[in-house]
Amino acid sequence: MGKSTIGIGVLGMGVVGGGVASVLDNRREQLSALVGCAVELKGVLVRDVAKPRAHQLPAGLITTDPRQVLDNPDVDIVVELMGGQDPALEYILGSVSQARHIVTANKEVMARHGPSILTAASEKGVQVLFEAAVAAGVPIIAPLLRDLVANEIIDIHGIINGTTNYILTRMANEGADFDATLADAQELGYAEADPTNDIEGIDAAYKLAVMATLAFRTKVMDIDVYHEGITKLTSRDFLHASELGYAIKLLAIADKVGDAVQARVHPALVPQDMMLAKVDGVLNAIEVQADLTGKLLFHGAGAGSMPTTSAVVADIVDIARNVAGNSVPPSNLALSDSVTIRPISELETRYYIRLTTTDRPGVLAQVGKVLGDLNISVASAIQKETDEVAQSAELVLMTHLSSESAMQTAISQLEALDVVAEVGNVIRVEEW
Amino acid sequence: MGKSTIGIGVLGMGVVGGGVASVLDNRREQLSALVGCAVELKGVLVRDVAKPRAHQLPAGLITTDPRQVLDNPDVDIVVELMGGQDPALEYILGSVSQARHIVTANKEVMARHGPSILTAASEKGVQVLFEAAVAAGVPIIAPLLRDLVANEIIDIHGIINGTTNYILTRMANEGADFDATLADAQELGYAEADPTNDIEGIDAAYKLAVMATLAFRTKVMDIDVYHEGITKLTSRDFLHASELGYAIKLLAIADKVGDAVQARVHPALVPQDMMLAKVDGVLNAIEVQADLTGKLLFHGAGAGSMPTTSAVVADIVDIARNVAGNSVPPSNLALSDSVTIRPISELETRYYIRLTTTDRPGVLAQVGKVLGDLNISVASAIQKETDEVAQSAELVLMTHLSSESAMQTAISQLEALDVVAEVGNVIRVEEW
Repeated sequence: MGKSTIGIGVLGMGVVGGGVASVLDNRREQLSALVGCAVELKGVLVRDVAKPRAHQLPAGLITTDPRQVLDNPDVDIVVELMGGQDPALEYILGSVSQARHIVTANKEVMARHGPSILTAASEKGVQVLFEAAVAAGVPIIAPLLRDLVANEIIDIHGIINGTTNYILTRMANEGADFDATLADAQELGYAEADPTNDIEGIDAAYKLAVMATLAFRTKVMDIDVYHEGITKLTSRDFLHASELGYAIKLLAIADKVGDAVQARVHPALVPQDMMLAKVDGVLNAIEVQADLTGKLLFHGAGAGSMPTTSAVVADIVDIARNVAGNSVPPSNLALSDSVTIRPISELETRYYIRLTTTDRPGVLAQVGKVLGDLNISVASAIQKETDEVAQSAELVLMTHLSSESAMQTAISQLEALDVVAEVGNVIRVEEW
Repeated sequence: MGKSTIGIGVLGMGVVGGGVASVLDNRREQLSALVGCAVELKGVLVRDVAKPRAHQLPAGLITTDPRQVLDNPDVDIVVELMGGQDPALEYILGSVSQARHIVTANKEVMARHGPSILTAASEKGVQVLFEAAVAAGVPIIAPLLRDLVANEIIDIHGIINGTTNYILTRMANEGADFDATLADAQELGYAEADPTNDIEGIDAAYKLAVMATLAFRTKVMDIDVYHEGITKLTSRDFLHASELGYAIKLLAIADKVGDAVQARVHPALVPQDMMLAKVDGVLNAIEVQADLTGKLLFHGAGAGSMPTTSAVVADIVDIARNVAGNSVPPSNLALSDSVTIRPISELETRYYIRLTTTDRPGVLAQVGKVLGDLNISVASAIQKETDEVAQSAELVLMTHLSSESAMQTAISQLEALDVVAEVGNVIRVEEW
C-alpha cells in the first residue's frame, strides 16, 4: 500500500517558494488526482516569520529553524529554493542521508556537487530532481534524462542567460554600446546591481555544467567550463557581424569528441538563419543535437518566479507519484569515469578579428604574416572606415578553421606590431 | 523483487521497427543500466519473414502470426508500429486486456480511440505511451504529461506536418505555385504519391487531437478538429503576405476558453517575427502557451525513422523502468467530461482577403458595404496590379477581428457581386 499523504518541506520562501505553495494549494485536486494521494506542505523554512507574503501560510508551518523542516518525519520531499552553495548543500546532503527525496532549483550546487549528490541519492534509493536549475520552466533536464535516452548526444548549444541575451539583443537593435545598455538593463530590472555572474558567463557556466553532466553521462563541474563574458563587445562588432550575416550571442556550448568533453561559454558569431540567432530578449533556448533525433530546440522563458514554479512542481509531482506507489525507479544517470575534459586551448573554430591599424601601406602584409606563420588562414578581410585625424583604420578579418592556441599567440603578436594600434576584439564563429 | 528481463513484442518491422530493434541491440548495456534489468525482443510480427532487413533478427523471433507475439507470455510491452486503424486498434486493446503495456507511434489510432484506450489501460493498471505519434523525436507528449503538469494550458500552435511546411517554404522562397511545388516534392520524396492526408490537413488534425486531449484533459477526437488544406494557396498570397509582414504556415491550433475547446488546422498568416514563422522546410515546431511557463517552443525533425525510433525507445525505457520496479504509477490523465467542443463557426479572428475585381469605380464601395453590413471591419485595403486586357484588378483586404460565420456569409455575398470576378482566397490571420 502507498501513502495517504506526501509531505513537502520547503527551504526558502521567496517568490518561487510562494509560487510553489500557491500551486500546491490552488491546484490541490488536480495534483492529488495525478499523484494518487494528497500532496501537502509540512514545513517551510523562512528567514523572517513576520514578513507579509502574497500566499498566506498557516503559522504552524513556518519556521526559522531548519531542523524543524529537515527533521520533520512527515516530510517526504525536501524542496530547496535557497540558492547559493551554503547552507543549501549541507541541507540537501543531510536530507538525502535521511532518505528524503530532493527537488532543487539550485544551479550552483548542482554544477559544483551534482554528481556526488546524485551518487549519494542513488545509494539511499531516493530521487533528486532539478529541472528548475536550468532555463526555469523550459523542459531540458527531463528531456535529457528521459526523452533522449536512446540517443548519443553530440552537442549542446544554448542561450541560457536571459540578462545577457537581453543586453546583446538591445546592442544589436540599437547600435548601443555595452556599458550604456547594461546601465539601462539594471534600471529596468533585467540586470542585477552586481551583474558579474551574468555578464561574465558564470551563471551560464553553472547551467552548462549541469546539462553536460547529463548529456554526456560524466562529471562536468563548473570549473571544467571555460567562460568568457560579454563586456568586450562593442557596437562596431554588431555592425560588422550583421554585415557579414551573423548575430552575436553568448553561447553555452558542450560537445563530446571521442572520450573528451569540452564545455565553454563565450560570445559567438552565429549565422543569422540559425534558430539560435533568432532568440531575442530575455528568452532562453537550448539546441541539443543527438544522433537519432538530429537537432532539437527548446525555447521559452528561462527565468521568473512562475516558470520556475512550474518546473519545481513538475519535479515534486514526478517524485510524489513514485513515493505514492512505494516505488522509486533506479537512478537514470550512471556516470562514466572514462571521460576527460578537453581544454579550450584544443578548440578548433573560425574567428572574427577586429583590429585598429595605422592607415598606411603594408598593414595587411604584416598582419597576414603573423597569422600565416601560425597557420591561421584568412577567409576574408575587409578594411573598414578610416579615421583621417587619428590616421587609423579598422580591419575586420574572418578566418578559416584555426586552432585556439595559435589564435591566442596571434593576438599577442598582433598587439606587438607597430601597425596595430589595438586588437579590438576576437570572437569565435560557431556554425554547427 | 523486480523482473530479470523485460520482454518486448514489436508489431510491424518497417524502418522504425528496424531502428528500435537495432537500438535495443546496440545500446543494450546503456539501456539495461537505466532500466535495472535487460530489455529484450521476444517476438516481432512481420508481413514477410524472408524480406532482407538492415538489422538482422534471429529467425525464431520473427513471425507472420500476430498471436505468436500477442499471446507470448514473455512479452511485457507491446510496441505497435503498424500504422493505420486496423488491425492496430484491435491488437492494442487486446494487449491491454491481457495487462500488457503499450508503446505506439500510431497517431490515427490515438486520435480516434486514445481516450478509450487510456481508460482501458488505467483500469488494467498498465501504461500506454505514444510520444512518437506526434512530431516523432521532438518531445511533446512527455512535456504535456509531465513537465507542464502544474500549469493550465492556454493554447497550442503547431507546425506538425513536414510535407506541407516543405511545400509552403518553397512556395514562399521561390514564388512558385502549389501544383508545381507539390509535383516537385513528390519527385524528391518529400510528399507521397497520394498526398491527400498531408495537404488536406488530415495528418495534422490527428496529431492535434492527440495533443489537445492531453493539454486540456478532455476528449478531443479527430472529428472534433476542423481542417482545411493548403491547395488553394497561390504565389500571389505569399507575395502579399510577405509585403504585409507575414509568413503563411499550415497551423494546428487548439485553445480552451471557459469549458470549450476549439481545435483547427488551416493555413494562416503568421507575423514574420514570431518563432513559428521562422520554422522552415520539413521541420516541425509546437508552441505551447501555459499559465505558469508562458510560451514554450519545441522544435525539430517531426518525422523520419531515427527520430521516431528515439521516441519509441524512450517510451519503452520509461515503462520498463516501472515494470522492473514492479510499480506502475497511476494514470496521469484524468479526462474531464464537462468540456465541450467550440465549432469553427464561433471563431473570431482577423482575415486576409484576396479578390479579383473589375477595374472600375465603385468596387471598393460595394465590397465595403457587404463587409460592413456583416460587421466585418476593414483594417487595410490595397489595390494591387491591374490587368489592362482583362480589365481586372486585385484587391487585398486585412480585416479587424471578425466572426467566422460572418466571414463565410461575406464570401458568398462577395462572390455574387458583379464587380467581383473571384474571391481568390481568404486566410485567417493568427497573432497570439
